[in-house]
Amino acid sequence: MQLCSLERLQEKVQHFSQYGANANGGITRLSLTGAALQARAEFCRRCNALGMTSVTDDMGNIYATMQGSEKLPAIVVGSHLDSVENGGNYDGVLGVLAGLELAETLHSAKKLLRHPLTILVWTNEEGARFDPAMMSSGVLAGKFEKEDMLASSDKNGVPFGQALAQSGYEGDVGNRLTAENCAAYFELHIEQGPVLEMGNVSIGVVSGVVGMVNYEICVTGTANHAGTTPQNTRQDALYASSQLVTDLWERLAPIAPDLVFTIGRFTVLPNIHTVIPGQVRFTLDARHQEEAVLQQVVEVLQNLPEHKVGCKVEVRQLWQRKTVEFAPRLVEAIQTSCDNFGYTNRRLYSGAGHDAQYMASLVPSAMIFVPSKQGRSHCPEEYTSPQAIWKGANVLLAAVFETDENTAIEPEGQCLR
Amino acid sequence: MQLCSLERLQEKVQHFSQYGANANGGITRLSLTGAALQARAEFCRRCNALGMTSVTDDMGNIYATMQGSEKLPAIVVGSHLDSVENGGNYDGVLGVLAGLELAETLHSAKKLLRHPLTILVWTNEEGARFDPAMMSSGVLAGKFEKEDMLASSDKNGVPFGQALAQSGYEGDVGNRLTAENCAAYFELHIEQGPVLEMGNVSIGVVSGVVGMVNYEICVTGTANHAGTTPQNTRQDALYASSQLVTDLWERLAPIAPDLVFTIGRFTVLPNIHTVIPGQVRFTLDARHQEEAVLQQVVEVLQNLPEHKVGCKVEVRQLWQRKTVEFAPRLVEAIQTSCDNFGYTNRRLYSGAGHDAQYMASLVPSAMIFVPSKQGRSHCPEEYTSPQAIWKGANVLLAAVFETDENTAIEPEGQCLR
Repeated sequence: MQLCSLERLQEKVQHFSQYGANANGGITRLSLTGAALQARAEFCRRCNALGMTSVTDDMGNIYATMQGSEKLPAIVVGSHLDSVENGGNYDGVLGVLAGLELAETLHSAKKLLRHPLTILVWTNEEGARFDPAMMSSGVLAGKFEKEDMLASSDKNGVPFGQALAQSGYEGDVGNRLTAENCAAYFELHIEQGPVLEMGNVSIGVVSGVVGMVNYEICVTGTANHAGTTPQNTRQDALYASSQLVTDLWERLAPIAPDLVFTIGRFTVLPNIHTVIPGQVRFTLDARHQEEAVLQQVVEVLQNLPEHKVGCKVEVRQLWQRKTVEFAPRLVEAIQTSCDNFGYTNRRLYSGAGHDAQYMASLVPSAMIFVPSKQGRSHCPEEYTSPQAIWKGANVLLAAVFETDENTAIEPEGQCLR
Repeated sequence: MQLCSLERLQEKVQHFSQYGANANGGITRLSLTGAALQARAEFCRRCNALGMTSVTDDMGNIYATMQGSEKLPAIVVGSHLDSVENGGNYDGVLGVLAGLELAETLHSAKKLLRHPLTILVWTNEEGARFDPAMMSSGVLAGKFEKEDMLASSDKNGVPFGQALAQSGYEGDVGNRLTAENCAAYFELHIEQGPVLEMGNVSIGVVSGVVGMVNYEICVTGTANHAGTTPQNTRQDALYASSQLVTDLWERLAPIAPDLVFTIGRFTVLPNIHTVIPGQVRFTLDARHQEEAVLQQVVEVLQNLPEHKVGCKVEVRQLWQRKTVEFAPRLVEAIQTSCDNFGYTNRRLYSGAGHDAQYMASLVPSAMIFVPSKQGRSHCPEEYTSPQAIWKGANVLLAAVFETDENTAIEPEGQCLR
């Protein structure tokens, strides 16, 4: 079986870690900033050196393509080069570098696929500079209006559209990935959770992306003087909310062992040490692959008491998204690759969002996870060992081979330019 | 018995409510701002009209004095004219206007006390413009260094010393209230709590100001991704803190029925809806008149677990203050006055801080509380009925008479100029 090069992969990870490097070992490489543009330029330079052709679409997504031996739609391997503020050296970039490694492996082996192989670099995946996350795949999949996205501004008031125009990466809408020009989309990514490491497993075979519900709970009491208001006359919104938080844990945790739920934003008003809290607003984010499980979460939320220790409790849904299932044929290709290499593996759903979840509505899509040390991500401590990355790239390569060989010839398919 | 004039009091409260009036019915009269200076000017104008002499000391405190028939130290009645941002029409100003009403009552009855009667207007009691609260009484009592106070700046960077110099109210240090020139200090104030109203009681006979302890509890877990971190691997600082808050309520509430404790400031990091809270810091403010009760609070805090659901719990004391007991002779004078008028009354400790608590370390001091509607204060809803104010002023007048008559003649005593 064809293998990738561990040394080449290691060099790429190290090299790209310099773009936006922080003193603490992590990076800040917000979308379309100088650091991100340096990384993009280096990516294009390396692709060109392999004889690949690079174009961009109207959202600034880069498509670097190695021609195939037949006139077929492309097999696309992609991810993103942008990071969050003070992020790590693996989230996103690893999927792009694994794609580059595949091209290098094919190039050095003088091997040609039947399909073109395209490496796709998404623009503004993190949403850390321009809200929302997964902006460009969302536009391609019809989840977001392009005009709204162009108007989305960073904290300095610079709209995405302006940053894109100035970047030199704004290309033609005709270059977009479509259902016609793409046979399959693969994305390799760090797990961002501890499941693989804890299970001592090399590869996560990702079945899909979990559905989620997001709620806001507003608890309203009465702000009053900390010194003059007897304890039994208080409507303390923090005391009520603390009871609600522990109640929610007690009721939600037993629903399913792999349900995750998080009260992440919790805002107290007026938040002064001598004033009884008059209001607390907090969010609840719950994720699971089964709709029936999320429905049980919704029922718990809908049945919260209307009052708690004298405070009014109001619950409203902020948003929800359904579980995305990846293409069984591609998931199987990844599974078979793991089995052939003898790599320990585990089926799981992604708890985080990825461009692949939007791509799945357009083209057959799937993801490969590699372990995250201590499950950490979006921080300088983010780490995946060279050996683990190499295994992931090998599985990706084998899954691409498998797809290349077994995908029905579609002569009417249009190649990515 | 001599009575104050309900109509005159009502006129004064209405008139002074215009200085710094907000559209919502409350006032913003931050110390030494235009609105506060207008109120001070009107106060001095009214005192002058009664033939009183006004001087200020080096902290801008105003002393308006009606001479007595003997060479004795003054009986001082005081409070403040400044308010918090978007405050009410009663907190502070009522004590000053009650003092003015006493002078008007004596003047119209052509009655002369043995002691001089001084109405004292404190500068920057609220601490809403310049930190700390009770700044000027604190300086006189030696609790704060004057130089530090002069350097304390408002949010626009204006130091207190500069605002004071520009106000025209900076006077001579020799005009300060001292143990030698003051025989007694009385302060009438709204309760700022619901105890009197709930008990259907007219007058609060204030025994002192409660002692307090203030702690910060820091709970440290691990911030992590809301979607990818299994529930049973989390160190969720908010979940831990919610348990601590409910535990604290369960353990502190039974200590004493009149113990008050408040978790007022509660800060969650990073406070993002998709991130498990990594740290929570919250304050605990507890107040009670008995040191033994506060000691029990301290013991509960010192015995908090070092870890809670995997998070580290750290506890530190921010500050404490001891209970201030008012002068029994003055408290008795207030009690006797209530009894003579047949006003329902209740002994209580002030849960809030007042200038009287600093004065108590210098001169015999006491306070009279009148009811606060629904216990509200520091808000436009602050309200005390004219009838309730009138009763308070009558008690204040009678207590001043009682003190005037029964205080031993001290011929060496020095009058306030």
